[in-house]
Amino acid sequence: MSAINYLFLGSSNTLGEFRADVNADWFGAVASALSGGIGSLLIAGVWMLIFPDLRRIDRFDPADRKPVEASMHVLITGAAGMIGRKLTTRLAIDRALGNQPIDKLTLIDLCVPERPPGFSNHVKIRAVDLSVPGAAEKAVAERPDVIFHLAGVVSGEAETDFEKGYRVNLDGTRALLETVRAIVDYKPKFVFTSSIAVFGAPFPETIRDDFHLTPLTSYGTQKAMSELMLADYTRRGFLEGVGVRLPTICVRPGKPNKAASGFFSGIIREPLAGQEATLPVADSVMHWHASPRAAVGFLIHATGLSRAQLGDGINLTMPGVCCTVGEQIAALKRIAGDKVVARIRREPNALVERIVAGWPRRFDASRALALGFTVEASFDEIIRAHIEDELDGKIV
Amino acid sequence: MSAINYLFLGSSNTLGEFRADVNADWFGAVASALSGGIGSLLIAGVWMLIFPDLRRIDRFDPADRKPVEASMHVLITGAAGMIGRKLTTRLAIDRALGNQPIDKLTLIDLCVPERPPGFSNHVKIRAVDLSVPGAAEKAVAERPDVIFHLAGVVSGEAETDFEKGYRVNLDGTRALLETVRAIVDYKPKFVFTSSIAVFGAPFPETIRDDFHLTPLTSYGTQKAMSELMLADYTRRGFLEGVGVRLPTICVRPGKPNKAASGFFSGIIREPLAGQEATLPVADSVMHWHASPRAAVGFLIHATGLSRAQLGDGINLTMPGVCCTVGEQIAALKRIAGDKVVARIRREPNALVERIVAGWPRRFDASRALALGFTVEASFDEIIRAHIEDELDGKIV
Repeated sequence: MSAINYLFLGSSNTLGEFRADVNADWFGAVASALSGGIGSLLIAGVWMLIFPDLRRIDRFDPADRKPVEASMHVLITGAAGMIGRKLTTRLAIDRALGNQPIDKLTLIDLCVPERPPGFSNHVKIRAVDLSVPGAAEKAVAERPDVIFHLAGVVSGEAETDFEKGYRVNLDGTRALLETVRAIVDYKPKFVFTSSIAVFGAPFPETIRDDFHLTPLTSYGTQKAMSELMLADYTRRGFLEGVGVRLPTICVRPGKPNKAASGFFSGIIREPLAGQEATLPVADSVMHWHASPRAAVGFLIHATGLSRAQLGDGINLTMPGVCCTVGEQIAALKRIAGDKVVARIRREPNALVERIVAGWPRRFDASRALALGFTVEASFDEIIRAHIEDELDGKIV
Repeated sequence: MSAINYLFLGSSNTLGEFRADVNADWFGAVASALSGGIGSLLIAGVWMLIFPDLRRIDRFDPADRKPVEASMHVLITGAAGMIGRKLTTRLAIDRALGNQPIDKLTLIDLCVPERPPGFSNHVKIRAVDLSVPGAAEKAVAERPDVIFHLAGVVSGEAETDFEKGYRVNLDGTRALLETVRAIVDYKPKFVFTSSIAVFGAPFPETIRDDFHLTPLTSYGTQKAMSELMLADYTRRGFLEGVGVRLPTICVRPGKPNKAASGFFSGIIREPLAGQEATLPVADSVMHWHASPRAAVGFLIHATGLSRAQLGDGINLTMPGVCCTVGEQIAALKRIAGDKVVARIRREPNALVERIVAGWPRRFDASRALALGFTVEASFDEIIRAHIEDELDGKIV
């Protein structure tokens, strides 16, 4: 087809050149260039009169500029969760992912997610349980270009409700992967939120990307299994997966929760809001943090990575801020002063101390950093991000 | 209760000593010892007459010696496979696992496994597809004390038939684990054959137990996912799992197959049987081997390990013999001479060379060795095991 096309394109140019040469020979170069220019304008003018519709097109709309296949449709599972809501808000503000405008957002969760304010393009919100047969098919039926798979049962619940953990965290993920695989000629970007819980103690001082997967929780097991499956589906070419192992998200907005890790956020969030916070562990406890804002940044950055950049190691430990509880408190003091820090009450709890002792503290995220993922440079920045994003810049 | 018991036991001894002291005092030491001895024999004689049943008990039968709960029932899945058949034969000869006699063997596979010759105790053979709903429940209904889970689709098939690989290797294993979990007060030993395919290139010179799981095949992915699940089910106390990562089994008995790894066995097996064998790779190719006999030994040894010995790292890389193809051939020459070695025909194959280049070569199995797993000391021993076990000691 292109050969035949070229035949016409090529000969029309050659005929044109022949005509121009003949003109130039008969009337001279200047007269023929002038008459050719005037002739072209006249033809354009006549065309404007004959086809008024064409005249009214003064620019291409974004929707027109790209073919239908390239229109960006983004699906977010677990969209009602904390990270899901922040990612939705960010995408609704950016109206784009990388350089491509977003035309459509599909937001699903167990309960109907909120509609992002100020996003005029098409938004679909749905209550979907991905572990129910047929649900994944419906969620993916419109072939979203990018899938952010954030849905999952949290660590504590996966440990207390064994069956639910496997059903949601493993079967839900697998259902989504299988549905994508079943659709012919469909290969979306698939960003999966994994966790540093895929790693298990005993830990070396610094944990590399290739540290063994020996999770010591059911949650970590389910995340590790999903990572493995995502890597296999990516290797086989069914989708383009990236597993994003999030650090502990700090400062989590909202109310205090009963998670053993809750105090990492609590000792910053409550004092800044004028309330007292309990610190159940020693100041020397060290941990690995990133702000909600940084977490959203990780997910968005992951969509821009090519298969060639990622290679086989598609599951990546994200960068974080490693600091002790004492350093967290010192940062709070620098930013908000003694009055705020005085709202932290030390109340040692042996159980929490013991749980936290089994957690990883520091990672070598050099691979993710080399791939362009970025995080706050200090815990001070994490606190400032919280004050800006959650408190409108105000401290009580 | 034991305090009250001790009161009677202690006072009966003390009363006896008091009686003996009184006798000795009254009649002298010799007379009292003699009369006491005769008296004891008389009492025993009278008891024999009064209770004839007691007299007829001259020994305890093994079946009587242990309570009903301790009777050993062993289930083998994939019992018709090469390792399954060898394990069955070994158990039928030993009639015991560790120190416990085996009362019952249940052998299952996709096709009905062979009945082991010479094993008079109860044997049940069944064709079962564990990935079919309800099949695992039937397989485990009689609560076997030890489960050897060997069933699985091999590496090549898992790669060509994506769905079958996940269905058999992942879903089949999960169905078995879930069935065990669902049975109240049941906690069998569960020995799972995993593979060095859980590891993926690029490899360090020596691969430690804690090397990252980044399998580069669907087979390796399914084995790694099963390992993770087995570890979680063990940690939660639903069963006592051990994952046994087998080296490449060499010399595999039987006909040549089309597996890329087939030549490792072929260059030994065929020449020893008087046939020509093709060697598609260079003599410098290095690999990790164990005999079928050693593999059976691994599985049996695994059943004797306690949870305390294993800790959280229940998945273990087995020891093996690391050698080059050249060293394999040199061993064959030492044992069988030039005439046999001359049957190896070098026929380089770029595809096989490339596949094999991505395989692991050497492992640090120090953990398994410390736990008492043993393997051949040299490739010579591997060849001798083959000649003894498969060729009745005869070389053509």
